[in-house]
Amino acid sequence: MTAIKYELIKTCKQTGARLGRVTTPHGSFETPVFMPVGTLATVKTMAPEELKDIGANIILSNTYHLWLRPGEDIVEEAGGLHKFMNWDGSILTDSGGFQVFSLSDMRKIEEKGVHFRNHLSGEKLFLSPEGATKIQNSLGSDIMMAFDECPPYPATYDYMKSSVERTSRWAERCLEAHQKPDQQGLFGIVQGGEYEDLRKQSAQDLISLDFPGYAIGGLSVGEPKDVMNRVLDFTTPLLPDDKPRYLMGVGSPDSLVDGAIRGVDMFDCVLPTRIARNGTCMTSKGRVVVRNAKFARDFTPLDDDCDCYTCRNYTKAYLRHLIKTNETLGIRLTTYHNLYFLVKLMKDVREAIKEDRLGDFRDQFFDQYGFNKPNAKNF
Amino acid sequence: MTAIKYELIKTCKQTGARLGRVTTPHGSFETPVFMPVGTLATVKTMAPEELKDIGANIILSNTYHLWLRPGEDIVEEAGGLHKFMNWDGSILTDSGGFQVFSLSDMRKIEEKGVHFRNHLSGEKLFLSPEGATKIQNSLGSDIMMAFDECPPYPATYDYMKSSVERTSRWAERCLEAHQKPDQQGLFGIVQGGEYEDLRKQSAQDLISLDFPGYAIGGLSVGEPKDVMNRVLDFTTPLLPDDKPRYLMGVGSPDSLVDGAIRGVDMFDCVLPTRIARNGTCMTSKGRVVVRNAKFARDFTPLDDDCDCYTCRNYTKAYLRHLIKTNETLGIRLTTYHNLYFLVKLMKDVREAIKEDRLGDFRDQFFDQYGFNKPNAKNF
Ligand SMILES: [Zn+2]
Ligand SMILES: [Zn+2]
Repeated sequence: MTAIKYELIKTCKQTGARLGRVTTPHGSFETPVFMPVGTLATVKTMAPEELKDIGANIILSNTYHLWLRPGEDIVEEAGGLHKFMNWDGSILTDSGGFQVFSLSDMRKIEEKGVHFRNHLSGEKLFLSPEGATKIQNSLGSDIMMAFDECPPYPATYDYMKSSVERTSRWAERCLEAHQKPDQQGLFGIVQGGEYEDLRKQSAQDLISLDFPGYAIGGLSVGEPKDVMNRVLDFTTPLLPDDKPRYLMGVGSPDSLVDGAIRGVDMFDCVLPTRIARNGTCMTSKGRVVVRNAKFARDFTPLDDDCDCYTCRNYTKAYLRHLIKTNETLGIRLTTYHNLYFLVKLMKDVREAIKEDRLGDFRDQFFDQYGFNKPNAKNF
Repeated sequence: MTAIKYELIKTCKQTGARLGRVTTPHGSFETPVFMPVGTLATVKTMAPEELKDIGANIILSNTYHLWLRPGEDIVEEAGGLHKFMNWDGSILTDSGGFQVFSLSDMRKIEEKGVHFRNHLSGEKLFLSPEGATKIQNSLGSDIMMAFDECPPYPATYDYMKSSVERTSRWAERCLEAHQKPDQQGLFGIVQGGEYEDLRKQSAQDLISLDFPGYAIGGLSVGEPKDVMNRVLDFTTPLLPDDKPRYLMGVGSPDSLVDGAIRGVDMFDCVLPTRIARNGTCMTSKGRVVVRNAKFARDFTPLDDDCDCYTCRNYTKAYLRHLIKTNETLGIRLTTYHNLYFLVKLMKDVREAIKEDRLGDFRDQFFDQYGFNKPNAKNF
């Protein structure tokens, strides 16, 4: 009995993108899907009902951050993360690996695990495959991630090879440590950087362990966009058709569409919530920086084509005023819109897959957003 | 045709408190009422729908702050404050006087008005009765306040007397400058500090000008609680029965009840929203500082007797976690609860007036809240 089921509903004839359905102990959702990030058991500024309103059925939360604050024991005592944060949809937790490798200055990697320092207090900490798995078992997420090494970009072939091998050994230890496979599904993470043969080795190692889902790690770490697409081009075909594929840390609209076209089913990223805090919004016509002076007397919505709560009720002039005066409601409203935008984008992508026209959709969406312009930014 | 109507429904036989109804161009509400403060055209962290949910029908916004940001011209161009902020209930704006006297270091009072400095930029500014009225006409609030001098506490009798006289002259100028008396009601503000004869003089001056409502200013400025109650004891009887009475800047639960008992109809204060930002909550059993360590594993609601959104869905442990990690949702939830608590308290006060038992209600409420304990704090 496995906690996570994946059903492949249809493949887009124009692009090969997959329409699917993932079922977890907390409901099911269609894929490709974008997962809002709720680092500290809250998607910044949003109430759970609002996440439901925008159509989100699964969110991501960060094991490392919850381990430090409030501590996974408190979350467990509360009845798990769902009860603690009042969210009855699905939750995916990362393994903490990414934070251990990106937030900590001082770290020492051993076969047993990683020694590093708490990014808040400087206190010495140690995280291992077994530890990360135990914490996620305490949190009670629906989807857990194996503890992997996140190599720097760029990394040499030799470094990457030994890292991939360690990540495979660690993945096996995570599986062995996992206490609740019938309630929580553990995904393996394919690493290997830009090296096709290492991606292949990593995928084969993990597939032999038979995870209920596979993530693609080590992308969106500073590499150019065409590198990411090339790696996806040779990596997703390595993964089994009957399991979900999760591209970690990717959330710019173009990369979501391009990832779906390459067979990815799940995405997460802090981008929509992070830029919202600065008053930057994703709209159907491209990026809008609503704090700009030119919007001071713009009494139209952020995005004429959007029917989200923010766009139905507020003007750019009001949003600009709130953001400029550091009023929380401003960030609430821009966050709401940005998450709605990406969740809706994935809905449109699914519709396009159903109708075998995701390639056409991409052309139209990229044109309207401005991605096809020279020097187009990533969001 | 006056913009503001007041109907006295009933007087509590036990206390003399008034149950009434105020009608504005944006609806009506029963009094005594507590008005949440939305300084910059937003009640901090709250969406307008949430204010409706908690039962608020009128909010306050600050003329001085909106004058500086975004500028009353932008609000007017948006179609007025209601449209700008998407709030279709009633709005009261203060005159800016309080901010001119409390926020600015350098000020010079002349008969014509006040020279002072912008508290943000240091830029020289001037505000007069005519200017404050014009700004409020542009904002389009339902209830406007006359521009008054806010004397320091304590002030000498002689200073207070000349200040009261100036405030009366300024009140007349505000009435003359007021461009939309059929759409916006202008209230006069009774000053006079602790001096009974000056309060009497101020009230008589203003009543002779026939405002549609009267505020009591110069209280809650640092004086002891018994001084406030004593001033109310001799001031509210000076005011006409057929007009609403508004006690400015008062929002601690005990003062709301004691003010209602003394015949006050309307209250406003930043207290519930300000303390919420620090994780301090008003509950039926007294103050709860939810960020305290003792709540780390407290999986019960903030207030067992409260049926607000926060108390129905979240635990103290979760609220503490959010507040400790500076997560916006924490402040949203504590703000929601505190505003709900005060709006509900006033509903309970109105019920008690209907049933001629506000004195009994006071005893019970004060006992449960802890106000009757030695050294009880004000909230
Ligand atoms: Zn929108
Ligand atoms: Zn409550």
